[in-house]
Amino acid sequence: MNYLETYLAFREKRMAYQYALWLVSWDQETEAPKNAMDYRSKRIETLSTLAYEVDTDPLRIEAIDKLAEDDTLELELKREIHLVKKDLDQMRKIPKKDYIEFQVLLSQAGQIWAESREKNDFEGFLPTLEKVINFQKTMVKYLETDTLKGYDVLLDMYEPGMSTTDYDVFFETLKEKLVPFAKKAAATKQVFSRSLKKAFPIEPQRAFNKYLLEVFNYNMDQGVLKESAHPFTSGVSSVDTRITTSYQDDFRSAIFSTIHEMGHGIYEQQVNPAYDYTELKGGVSMGIHESQSRLYENMLARSESFWQTHYPKLQETFKKELKHVTLEEFVRYVNEVKMNLIRVDADELTYSLHIMVRYEIEKMLFNGKLKPKDLPKTWNKLYKTYLGIKPKTDKEGVLQDIHWSLGSFGYFPTYALGSAISAQIYHKMNQSINIDEALKSNQVYKINEWLKQNIHQYGRLYEPKTLLMMATNEPFNPNYYVDYLISKYEKILGIKA
Amino acid sequence: MNYLETYLAFREKRMAYQYALWLVSWDQETEAPKNAMDYRSKRIETLSTLAYEVDTDPLRIEAIDKLAEDDTLELELKREIHLVKKDLDQMRKIPKKDYIEFQVLLSQAGQIWAESREKNDFEGFLPTLEKVINFQKTMVKYLETDTLKGYDVLLDMYEPGMSTTDYDVFFETLKEKLVPFAKKAAATKQVFSRSLKKAFPIEPQRAFNKYLLEVFNYNMDQGVLKESAHPFTSGVSSVDTRITTSYQDDFRSAIFSTIHEMGHGIYEQQVNPAYDYTELKGGVSMGIHESQSRLYENMLARSESFWQTHYPKLQETFKKELKHVTLEEFVRYVNEVKMNLIRVDADELTYSLHIMVRYEIEKMLFNGKLKPKDLPKTWNKLYKTYLGIKPKTDKEGVLQDIHWSLGSFGYFPTYALGSAISAQIYHKMNQSINIDEALKSNQVYKINEWLKQNIHQYGRLYEPKTLLMMATNEPFNPNYYVDYLISKYEKILGIKA
Repeated sequence: MNYLETYLAFREKRMAYQYALWLVSWDQETEAPKNAMDYRSKRIETLSTLAYEVDTDPLRIEAIDKLAEDDTLELELKREIHLVKKDLDQMRKIPKKDYIEFQVLLSQAGQIWAESREKNDFEGFLPTLEKVINFQKTMVKYLETDTLKGYDVLLDMYEPGMSTTDYDVFFETLKEKLVPFAKKAAATKQVFSRSLKKAFPIEPQRAFNKYLLEVFNYNMDQGVLKESAHPFTSGVSSVDTRITTSYQDDFRSAIFSTIHEMGHGIYEQQVNPAYDYTELKGGVSMGIHESQSRLYENMLARSESFWQTHYPKLQETFKKELKHVTLEEFVRYVNEVKMNLIRVDADELTYSLHIMVRYEIEKMLFNGKLKPKDLPKTWNKLYKTYLGIKPKTDKEGVLQDIHWSLGSFGYFPTYALGSAISAQIYHKMNQSINIDEALKSNQVYKINEWLKQNIHQYGRLYEPKTLLMMATNEPFNPNYYVDYLISKYEKILGIKA
Repeated sequence: MNYLETYLAFREKRMAYQYALWLVSWDQETEAPKNAMDYRSKRIETLSTLAYEVDTDPLRIEAIDKLAEDDTLELELKREIHLVKKDLDQMRKIPKKDYIEFQVLLSQAGQIWAESREKNDFEGFLPTLEKVINFQKTMVKYLETDTLKGYDVLLDMYEPGMSTTDYDVFFETLKEKLVPFAKKAAATKQVFSRSLKKAFPIEPQRAFNKYLLEVFNYNMDQGVLKESAHPFTSGVSSVDTRITTSYQDDFRSAIFSTIHEMGHGIYEQQVNPAYDYTELKGGVSMGIHESQSRLYENMLARSESFWQTHYPKLQETFKKELKHVTLEEFVRYVNEVKMNLIRVDADELTYSLHIMVRYEIEKMLFNGKLKPKDLPKTWNKLYKTYLGIKPKTDKEGVLQDIHWSLGSFGYFPTYALGSAISAQIYHKMNQSINIDEALKSNQVYKINEWLKQNIHQYGRLYEPKTLLMMATNEPFNPNYYVDYLISKYEKILGIKA
């Protein structure tokens, strides 16, 4: 066999394991019975080991190294080899012993974090968190290159091409323009009918969420909508991209979760199907992925144009609850602004301020300016500074997120980045098609189509920065985001920035 | 590594693939989106190939052969080695080329059967069926031993220890005692309220089926109830045994399907959990498995004692439909007797007559007394003889079942055998616990417990014949079945045998 044939034979096996592990994980989150956990863990362990053996087979490694030197490869294969070689290079830099030790630590850390959060016991979590951070610093050392140092190594892992230099510019813009406006907005009096605050029954919620699948042209022949504790999207190919939602008393929760996950889902469903059997399937980065979910959830589904078309249907679904709620009030209600301590409950306007706090903290942790033991103090101070509120307990403060216990430093910034990118894409798209018109005439397919042509179809073919440049004709520019938010909330709240 | 360590290391991998393929198949039948079929097929192909490579690894084979010679193994390991060696010996006897060729043929045959049935075109299916039968005859030749010849090879595959000699005795008993009684019973006038024949709404059906899970103590921490086109049970370990049901206009369909599958499910859930990680998990044979599902479905759930307790709940669920239906009428209704052309729609009394037709045909096909082209004629003649009715089309005759297109000759008899075994077990159990009392006082757990102690816990530890002997103190005796049926229907229909 030549190198290409060798590589493709290994890819076949790699994808078989990936598929099996993907389905096991989907099943685990949505349906597997409680007592099956240990049995499943054993199976996952074996399948993961077998997959690791395929990935690190010397013949595969040799094939990838040789193919990476081959200048004659066509664009798609060249990109694929680049992507797998990047993973491989990282794998090679980290001693297997350290890698396994870190995985073991992380598997325990998640459990310890959950217990500590439950007991509001930061001190109980601290020794573990210190170990995770130290380990992650060792990993960073292994992975550093001439151009990537320290925290930038981690940032690049979640959003290739983004460094502290880029993020600093982004968050400085938010600090300067968004923080004062958000405080003003949150202080504005927002009054709502009492019937909105009651528990909305679940069955009609389910029915309306099904209706939304149709409205957004989420392809149910290539997907599934199911329920899980926390909503998520899980795709394994363009023809099998599944989403979940979760029904709460507050009807807004499921509606916007479903639409958010549909944004992720439609992205992966619209990737070129020829990529299904290659490493180019799926989304290219966390930031681009989040830009799609946020675009659907916020720019489209929290707009007045959207609800002009669909509010009557919702009113019909919840006759009693929404009888006296006008469209105007309803639109204000789904755009309610509140300074909130919990990130996952944040509204569109204040969400990225939560991320800013985490970004600053992560940066300080990795450049040595902050010690883990001082985390609660710094956390609370930054919340006071940027959001004007201060947690009373660590449970609703520094212990609220799972990410750090998983070693996922560098992940948070992509959430804010995604929101900002969505505004830039939205702005560009609006020059080609009248988005408000498309929403008012229930023609979301036009929006899907534009996104498919300009973003989705490419899968992982281009670097995120290249993709954004191709789609919008300019590099990442956070001003679109700030301008969009200020103009939207000025109008909704009747205030001036 | 010694042979045992080698064997156990391979078992670990084998079970990981088994788990993955089990879950893929469960997902395929219950939830996977339509367009994911091709993508999944590729993955299944690779995973199956990898699993086959593990099973046929020369080191594994050597280890099994050596362990099979080792007289010092303890009971459970000895039995496990016996079971895997039996599979291995069969695998070794069939040339790989023939095996693959047969698999390819079968994968096409299923499709061709479905199309032919749809078009009522036996001639269209005949050439394929002939190929399948000839191939199966070749397989039988490969697998014959000193003691097992011809059709017996196939019978033993589905129910180890059962041969034509055994089945002949069984079916002769049915022919002599059951056929005349069933004809008499079916000719008895059975009148039912018109409200029973209307379409029962699905949501209340779902609610009642959930209630049944509790009644039967089906362990939802170790199982799942879902919907699929055809009800089935799919277990991978005692802690993960899932069932499905299917809701139809006729409310009886889902109720008795759910209970039937619960019978299969409770069996596997109650196997000694220490066997989960061994080859002893799961049920021991098709016949024993079916005896459990039939026992729950028929002996327990079609009894008057059972409905004395639960009919009020059902009446409450279907207020309008069941308002004027008395318990007595209801019990008669769930035990309605009709000569029917379709096996899967058959009632408890006539079910095994459908199997008798298939058994006689299979026997003749394999001893050369019947040519495939003469199948419709023979089928129709036997239906006339045993059931007194004759199909008008092959669609409702010889083309109705999928089994032969899958090469599953020898499978059908286990359905009738299971029903008959269930009567023998029921009879024995009734000597230890008062089953009617347990049902009337809603204490099915007592029945579960008896079955666990006497059947379920052993998993695959004993041969089916040994297990039955241990549980009932006598070998298989079809008279319990005939006596049970005659006495039950004499009472319900007010007739005499």
